[in-house]
Amino acid sequence: MNTFGTIFRLTSFGESHGRGIGGVIDGMPAGIKIEYDFIQNELNRRRPGQSSIVTPRKENDKVEFLSGVYEGYSTGAPIGFVIYNENQHSSDYNNLKETFRPSHADYTYTQKYGIRDHRGGGRSSARETIARCVAGALAKLVLKELSIDIKAFTSQVGNISLSKDYRQYDLSRIEENIVRCPDEKKAAKMIALIDEVRAAGDTIGGVITCVIQNMPVGLGDPVFNKLHAELGGAMLGINAVKGFEYGMGFDGVQYRGSQMNDVFVQKDGRVSTLTNNSGGIQGGISNGEDIYFRVAFKPVATILRDIQTLDKSGAEVILKAKGRHDPCVLPRAVPIVEAMAAIVILDHYLLNKTKHI
Amino acid sequence: MNTFGTIFRLTSFGESHGRGIGGVIDGMPAGIKIEYDFIQNELNRRRPGQSSIVTPRKENDKVEFLSGVYEGYSTGAPIGFVIYNENQHSSDYNNLKETFRPSHADYTYTQKYGIRDHRGGGRSSARETIARCVAGALAKLVLKELSIDIKAFTSQVGNISLSKDYRQYDLSRIEENIVRCPDEKKAAKMIALIDEVRAAGDTIGGVITCVIQNMPVGLGDPVFNKLHAELGGAMLGINAVKGFEYGMGFDGVQYRGSQMNDVFVQKDGRVSTLTNNSGGIQGGISNGEDIYFRVAFKPVATILRDIQTLDKSGAEVILKAKGRHDPCVLPRAVPIVEAMAAIVILDHYLLNKTKHI
Amino acid sequence: MNTFGTIFRLTSFGESHGRGIGGVIDGMPAGIKIEYDFIQNELNRRRPGQSSIVTPRKENDKVEFLSGVYEGYSTGAPIGFVIYNENQHSSDYNNLKETFRPSHADYTYTQKYGIRDHRGGGRSSARETIARCVAGALAKLVLKELSIDIKAFTSQVGNISLSKDYRQYDLSRIEENIVRCPDEKKAAKMIALIDEVRAAGDTIGGVITCVIQNMPVGLGDPVFNKLHAELGGAMLGINAVKGFEYGMGFDGVQYRGSQMNDVFVQKDGRVSTLTNNSGGIQGGISNGEDIYFRVAFKPVATILRDIQTLDKSGAEVILKAKGRHDPCVLPRAVPIVEAMAAIVILDHYLLNKTKHI
Amino acid sequence: MNTFGTIFRLTSFGESHGRGIGGVIDGMPAGIKIEYDFIQNELNRRRPGQSSIVTPRKENDKVEFLSGVYEGYSTGAPIGFVIYNENQHSSDYNNLKETFRPSHADYTYTQKYGIRDHRGGGRSSARETIARCVAGALAKLVLKELSIDIKAFTSQVGNISLSKDYRQYDLSRIEENIVRCPDEKKAAKMIALIDEVRAAGDTIGGVITCVIQNMPVGLGDPVFNKLHAELGGAMLGINAVKGFEYGMGFDGVQYRGSQMNDVFVQKDGRVSTLTNNSGGIQGGISNGEDIYFRVAFKPVATILRDIQTLDKSGAEVILKAKGRHDPCVLPRAVPIVEAMAAIVILDHYLLNKTKHI
Repeated sequence: MNTFGTIFRLTSFGESHGRGIGGVIDGMPAGIKIEYDFIQNELNRRRPGQSSIVTPRKENDKVEFLSGVYEGYSTGAPIGFVIYNENQHSSDYNNLKETFRPSHADYTYTQKYGIRDHRGGGRSSARETIARCVAGALAKLVLKELSIDIKAFTSQVGNISLSKDYRQYDLSRIEENIVRCPDEKKAAKMIALIDEVRAAGDTIGGVITCVIQNMPVGLGDPVFNKLHAELGGAMLGINAVKGFEYGMGFDGVQYRGSQMNDVFVQKDGRVSTLTNNSGGIQGGISNGEDIYFRVAFKPVATILRDIQTLDKSGAEVILKAKGRHDPCVLPRAVPIVEAMAAIVILDHYLLNKTKHI
Repeated sequence: MNTFGTIFRLTSFGESHGRGIGGVIDGMPAGIKIEYDFIQNELNRRRPGQSSIVTPRKENDKVEFLSGVYEGYSTGAPIGFVIYNENQHSSDYNNLKETFRPSHADYTYTQKYGIRDHRGGGRSSARETIARCVAGALAKLVLKELSIDIKAFTSQVGNISLSKDYRQYDLSRIEENIVRCPDEKKAAKMIALIDEVRAAGDTIGGVITCVIQNMPVGLGDPVFNKLHAELGGAMLGINAVKGFEYGMGFDGVQYRGSQMNDVFVQKDGRVSTLTNNSGGIQGGISNGEDIYFRVAFKPVATILRDIQTLDKSGAEVILKAKGRHDPCVLPRAVPIVEAMAAIVILDHYLLNKTKHI
Repeated sequence: MNTFGTIFRLTSFGESHGRGIGGVIDGMPAGIKIEYDFIQNELNRRRPGQSSIVTPRKENDKVEFLSGVYEGYSTGAPIGFVIYNENQHSSDYNNLKETFRPSHADYTYTQKYGIRDHRGGGRSSARETIARCVAGALAKLVLKELSIDIKAFTSQVGNISLSKDYRQYDLSRIEENIVRCPDEKKAAKMIALIDEVRAAGDTIGGVITCVIQNMPVGLGDPVFNKLHAELGGAMLGINAVKGFEYGMGFDGVQYRGSQMNDVFVQKDGRVSTLTNNSGGIQGGISNGEDIYFRVAFKPVATILRDIQTLDKSGAEVILKAKGRHDPCVLPRAVPIVEAMAAIVILDHYLLNKTKHI
Repeated sequence: MNTFGTIFRLTSFGESHGRGIGGVIDGMPAGIKIEYDFIQNELNRRRPGQSSIVTPRKENDKVEFLSGVYEGYSTGAPIGFVIYNENQHSSDYNNLKETFRPSHADYTYTQKYGIRDHRGGGRSSARETIARCVAGALAKLVLKELSIDIKAFTSQVGNISLSKDYRQYDLSRIEENIVRCPDEKKAAKMIALIDEVRAAGDTIGGVITCVIQNMPVGLGDPVFNKLHAELGGAMLGINAVKGFEYGMGFDGVQYRGSQMNDVFVQKDGRVSTLTNNSGGIQGGISNGEDIYFRVAFKPVATILRDIQTLDKSGAEVILKAKGRHDPCVLPRAVPIVEAMAAIVILDHYLLNKTKHI
């Protein structure tokens, strides 16, 4: 299904080279001031053509809101929106109509639906994530009023990764470089690597770290909808994501419980923990400490090289290098990670209001 | 909510030291033969007291089915079931009534609900996973008829991990050792490590790898409910899980697209891929290759040592070592991972039938 | 699916002659005192054998709660429950194994599922409504704390119907007669009619009216989930129901808008209406006035006469009169109508809390 | 929530005087030919200004599809659509900004959300039903391929009602008169009555009957989601609807079971029934006979007379007659009833495919 969320819900539609991308945001709390500039700015953060290390495609990605807002405030009615497509080089993709690109969704879509809009990847294009950024921007407007702060950044590109803990960086400076990494020196190295990869007509993966601060205690449903399960499911739903870990994550498996347990202490008059290996979530419920998690992105499949593959008939064909692509999706994926996190947190904030009369 | 799944749905109930654990399985296809011995055997695989490296608690975990089966076959009606609790040492937990155990759900439950059943962790106890194993066993009965095979095994305990790829092991031999690892030598090392950790009153984490073979092509909803997002969300909902990765996972981020793309080839008259870095899923939809993923489990929080923590009033207290616990959850978590995977795959198999008339 | 509700959810299981009837109540607000006597009394109101005008079957319908309650209060965890079946004369139904009873679900279940538990109607038996009464009783416990009051009564049996408006009866006296009608004289006539019908081995239908008083303003989702649409869907889900109307209902269609509009007035310092043809709901949202609606029940299909019908092979057979049945379901359906109304109102009360931060 | 359906799902957005009305249709089966003329024609059937007995507002209600269709066929991707608003006399409604119209949603929306778009009723306007007609038209395209036929017609206006059973009319002639009634003589009387009512600045209610023919056996979930409960909930979600009954309905309550039971017989080599008091549904599941039901519409609240009411401050005000309105909604509601029925039937057709592997 193309709906995400339980109370705060995004239903998304649209293909890369169709009329446009859009959706319906349902469950937006009433009476929230809609700051259009903020929302557009969030879209601009994921927009192609924003820097030298992303695809040069030029798109304005201007969102039009069609409902649910009156005199600048949300009314509680569903918010319909659309971003019309522009600057499509559909002809770039004619060669894909009958051909399955390796590690793309071409083959699986064709098998599942028996028909597919091949232009620019159609529904499987990462262009769909614009809709998530719109919903995420609205969620952020609500979370701002709750003083909940979500920040994501690029913590690894290829084999270049941050050595220090997020607490040791000034997260307010993430936007100061085009790769969105809070460590200037590492950022420069990452950018150089992406340039090198692009020059080779290749792509590279990486890791985005996300931190949620000033969390209320008590968000998350403790069994199947643990807060980290919801966050993980949301992140794994983003194109090119191959892994998710929170708190101690995969590294923590080699330690002892006695080393990893977070001792409770009194801090500023509230219950806090000395360490935060739990990543701000215990038993699936937020405990008020920082939530932090890491998301692994594969090197995207679209490379600018001739590729041998199969066509619909099963015959071998050579796919000529064509089109415009991202050598590394991470810089543009940072706002998408934040957006999905914002949707999950707001959804659970609202759900949590139903636990008591 | 305590319901998992869209078409094949498990609704679970129960606390560690209440009357029992149980649930309702809705959406079970009609006309499936219910093999009770197989189901009970699945429960026995997660049962406490099954070996020297798990908690010595003795529980029969005998499941009683209350509905939905007639003359040995599923009727399409919901299947209610209950496993009554036995052998509870509730008094072991009296000291926890007013105290928050570190890295447990005690504090967050109390804050969220204002009340909690503290006995044995109440609803947050891993004992709830019995219900998932029952639903998973039923799902496996259906998947068997579809020849879909799911196998999980322990691939890492602490710093002892398998060096070879799953294809190089005989997965039919996983049950031959108590740690459920297909590599005899590594298994022996893992068992020794768990013994050592238990003797120290401590705990240790690890990784479970799961492989799904003979998958049909086309399962998974391509946007929010990508097949790997559903599997990831399901795994992250299991107690003590801190991370999930599939296919190339976190390691893959440092490679180039040209190294990671899975070239399509003809194999046995069907479209296959030369490599399987995609982990059997492309664009969120199964492509017929093996699905494989890794799940990280933290060292469980319950250790047999005196612990300094806080009580409800916020005062510091020393928690005396007490009760019986698992030094390492992985051996018992293997069937739980398989169960949740089976539920997700069956759910999407059924959902996929609705894509065409 | 066998789940009803969005936030306050009942998942039901069980067949008439299986092990038992039960379910899981999810989303019960935490900290509510569970009054077991009240709950059992609600079940007793629908229990067979309670009077001379209902089926003489003797069943205790004793509910056992299995989870979600600690020291007498709801914990916010799911509440599992079961009512074990007793006193089943399954052999009464042997003749039905291969035969389709007219206007029963025998034929449609067989066609839909390819298999059916024929004993006592299996899943299609009204016995399943016990689960709804348990969930409804829990909902009523919450609504009591909110001072919301739900009362249903028999307003018509066959052609004997109340002539006066519900406001002209003392609804606290409904339980004073076995047909659950607030008009003593009409009640006597209804009882006589039911006796006559039963003596003839026949059945008769009727209408139940339900009134919800002291409603908060603002419950109901205005488009698809209008409060009356939810109530109507809930009532139509009750066995033997053929129709639902609220407020002016079917009679109102012949009047003019000028005659039917409810003029707003100030009453006791709040906005009220002079008339209440809207039935307490405007635009799908409660306006604080009384909600009232009527539910039509058909004469149940089980009659004590020989019936000509078809068997599985399509051959004509005579079905011999057998078993014990209700000549009129209305007296026992009154608590079921109240229960489903309570579930809907509580569900929307909780949902409404999510409309604002 | 603003989503309707389980597998075939409509998510709707839009206000009467906002940018437009639209939605997302999810779960449309893949490979269905999209006949745009048919869809537009369905919208034209509900369009204002179509005849002398409906509101004279002129709107083209031209639907634009934004996604999910490729080369004229559905792709299985969500279908986004929008109908931009035109010809809005928002100023007609300035007097309503601070005033609550009797029997409208003005008061309840304001209380529920604390803010409302008052122009033309905003979200509560029947204009939202355009979105339902678009989804219904797509559902009808699928049902056509399944040979399932849905027809609704006006069977009563005020006190003028059809005396004969639907089987005695030629339902293919419904569109031949502007009130959409298959009985020419009664149609003329109904039209005259509506003219008279409109001349008086008043409104009148009525009843729409809907018939579903050539139904497959087995659709409907037997407990909470009985096919008639789904149809009833869908109809009660339509603006101005006050009641729903199917099969024998309210009239049937006064008969005996022996008179109402539908005897099974062999007809054209399949199991059929001699009578059809069940209305084509038994135990909540379709039995292959015609489904028929009746929907009661109140006289709409908007009348062209000065009205005494209250404003936001609670002060009494006189509301001057203004704007353009429908004296009777039935002619335009006929396609809406068909649309919602089509959505329900297709949704359950698809759901039913999941009952077996």
